[in-house]
Amino acid sequence: MSGLPDRLVRVVLSRIGEPGDPRLCGLVRDLGAAAVLDGLLGQATLDDAQRDLAQRLGSVDPVRELERAERLGIRFVVPGDPEWPGALDDLATEAAHQSGLGGVPVGLWLRGPLRLDQLPPMVAVVGARSSTTYGERVAADLSGAVARAGMVVVSGAAAGIDQAAHRGALAAGGSTVAVLACGPERAYPAANRPLIDHIVATGLVVSEVPPGSAPLRSRFLGRNRLIAALSVGTVVVEAALRSGALSSAGWAVGLNRVVMGVPGPVTSETSQGVHEKIRAGSMHLVTQGADVLELVGAAGEHLLDVRRAPTRPRDRLPVRDRRVLDAVPVGRPAGADSIAVAAGIALQHVQGALERLASGGWVCRTEQGWRLARDEPHGPDPAPDLRSVGE
Amino acid sequence: MSGLPDRLVRVVLSRIGEPGDPRLCGLVRDLGAAAVLDGLLGQATLDDAQRDLAQRLGSVDPVRELERAERLGIRFVVPGDPEWPGALDDLATEAAHQSGLGGVPVGLWLRGPLRLDQLPPMVAVVGARSSTTYGERVAADLSGAVARAGMVVVSGAAAGIDQAAHRGALAAGGSTVAVLACGPERAYPAANRPLIDHIVATGLVVSEVPPGSAPLRSRFLGRNRLIAALSVGTVVVEAALRSGALSSAGWAVGLNRVVMGVPGPVTSETSQGVHEKIRAGSMHLVTQGADVLELVGAAGEHLLDVRRAPTRPRDRLPVRDRRVLDAVPVGRPAGADSIAVAAGIALQHVQGALERLASGGWVCRTEQGWRLARDEPHGPDPAPDLRSVGE
Repeated sequence: MSGLPDRLVRVVLSRIGEPGDPRLCGLVRDLGAAAVLDGLLGQATLDDAQRDLAQRLGSVDPVRELERAERLGIRFVVPGDPEWPGALDDLATEAAHQSGLGGVPVGLWLRGPLRLDQLPPMVAVVGARSSTTYGERVAADLSGAVARAGMVVVSGAAAGIDQAAHRGALAAGGSTVAVLACGPERAYPAANRPLIDHIVATGLVVSEVPPGSAPLRSRFLGRNRLIAALSVGTVVVEAALRSGALSSAGWAVGLNRVVMGVPGPVTSETSQGVHEKIRAGSMHLVTQGADVLELVGAAGEHLLDVRRAPTRPRDRLPVRDRRVLDAVPVGRPAGADSIAVAAGIALQHVQGALERLASGGWVCRTEQGWRLARDEPHGPDPAPDLRSVGE
Repeated sequence: MSGLPDRLVRVVLSRIGEPGDPRLCGLVRDLGAAAVLDGLLGQATLDDAQRDLAQRLGSVDPVRELERAERLGIRFVVPGDPEWPGALDDLATEAAHQSGLGGVPVGLWLRGPLRLDQLPPMVAVVGARSSTTYGERVAADLSGAVARAGMVVVSGAAAGIDQAAHRGALAAGGSTVAVLACGPERAYPAANRPLIDHIVATGLVVSEVPPGSAPLRSRFLGRNRLIAALSVGTVVVEAALRSGALSSAGWAVGLNRVVMGVPGPVTSETSQGVHEKIRAGSMHLVTQGADVLELVGAAGEHLLDVRRAPTRPRDRLPVRDRRVLDAVPVGRPAGADSIAVAAGIALQHVQGALERLASGGWVCRTEQGWRLARDEPHGPDPAPDLRSVGE
């Protein structure tokens, strides 16, 4: 096979290697794909692992592989191709390598009309397969908001949160990319066949392993690393303390991507992993799409104001009237004299203020004295902001 | 009234002033209580506000006030008394004053067997009156854990979260302190009468306003400031975007106390205020009592390890066996040869590994080949941790 074009060498390596194998990726990075293949073919003193790889070589015909893929509508993209996503080169950094992140894929198998080099920034929305109705609803809402803002939602097409994320983006009329742990023509779990078919028809399916490859446990790890690397930020919607979704978040941290998590009930096991990461400061808390856009958006875009309740009418009352209103007892009526004492304001001023408050609908005059109007919120959570203190 | 002992002067000021009135508190801090009272009595040129205060003087008989309080089992504690809580002096700092926090109370009206100078550190647990079942459960659990650790739970005896916090501490056999916005012999809301009576009998009720005082809106603000100041940390369990519970948190920030919040469903309005504060970085996320103890505990105590799921048996498999196990397809059986190819390990080694894995209950041999054992978790969330990558 010596002397093959780079693309075909990479088809061979894609077929015989495993996604993210740091040894293979490291060799390809340092020596080039052709030299690695030559080494496997020609070297006299192979170590165990190299012998394992070399053993598989006999069965690989890269030209036939590419033809077969093309018949399935699958294209193979390698570094240097226009469509190759530069974001994946971050996997080649020494930092990524040191943290055991696995290296740059030797190539990507793509299926679908979207082109990786013509996509707006991607946001990963991932989470537990054993999700709750709550988590699925939040994942769909959040993904819809991200998609409506023109970004692409990327996820793993798994059951639970992944599925809800893809569906939420599609329902909002947006684009979505599915990164699979198996070949790009397969569907795992099988129940997601219609969803994956829809993404193949309208979006993009990405696999690091060639057509025909089965979903192996180790390949889910590699898949998670790709999801993190392709995205500017990763949102984890639900994740138990030890879960694959947290592994995606771990990759994203190693790649200096924005890592976000959606909280949930502390009584829900599927939110514990997210809470732990937020608590430890390695995840930003987000509650909705706007929070995500603020964190991943270009500088100056999507900047979110601190969320506040709207100013209430009582805040617009004159200071003295408000002080009188504050002095009307909660629960039972009081006379103007006792209100004056409580407010620390002379009775003559209190009378006028009470009349104004009554005409504004704040208080009512009853036979027992003045009382707060029914529709004005009152009670032990007076909901002031701090500025109203000390007047 | 000139020449009265300090304690009686403060009874008068407690009766005529309003909790946390920064003007009155500032004058008492700068001039002393006696001088403030003398000024009110003797000064010829009173401004409006001083006249308001002076107007109330006629009706106050401090000796009778104290006698009446004593008959109700209520004691009046002033700065300099052994029982005076030094923590409240933080309200006198310039920083607290600048942020409009209101000053040091002129005195506290206390009811109950606990003594403020003999209490372990206090943790405030506060939140929405319109709480959810979720919030109440979490507040009670968390307060119970805090109480079992020997700390005192302080709250406002309001409906909802406050009530759950007191009850949780009591149910755990712990101590609890209620800070009221009304006189210490009153119960607001009335439905909390049995709870407040129980706290009076076993714990401590604290009021800044004297017996007979009604719960006014402005007094809830003052009450929130006391809760924050008395505690080493404040936990907000549920709070809408604009709520009294967030005001407690605001005081706690101003006083450099530890401020904590419990997340909840992002779809729940009563969790929005907490999420916003965590998002803005002004609240620590906590999910249980242990988190709280870690944050407020003395240095070195209650240090919490990063929460992890327990190590699973598969982590203890030899590296090569685990790699073979990872290569057994998810979903359907495979032959040893195809597993060898996927694992990148020579067939002769794979055979031995599969036998070992079968005897360990990890895989089964079927007529179609090897498959994963039923009770081993498998699928797209392979739940690895990052260390297992790259082997």
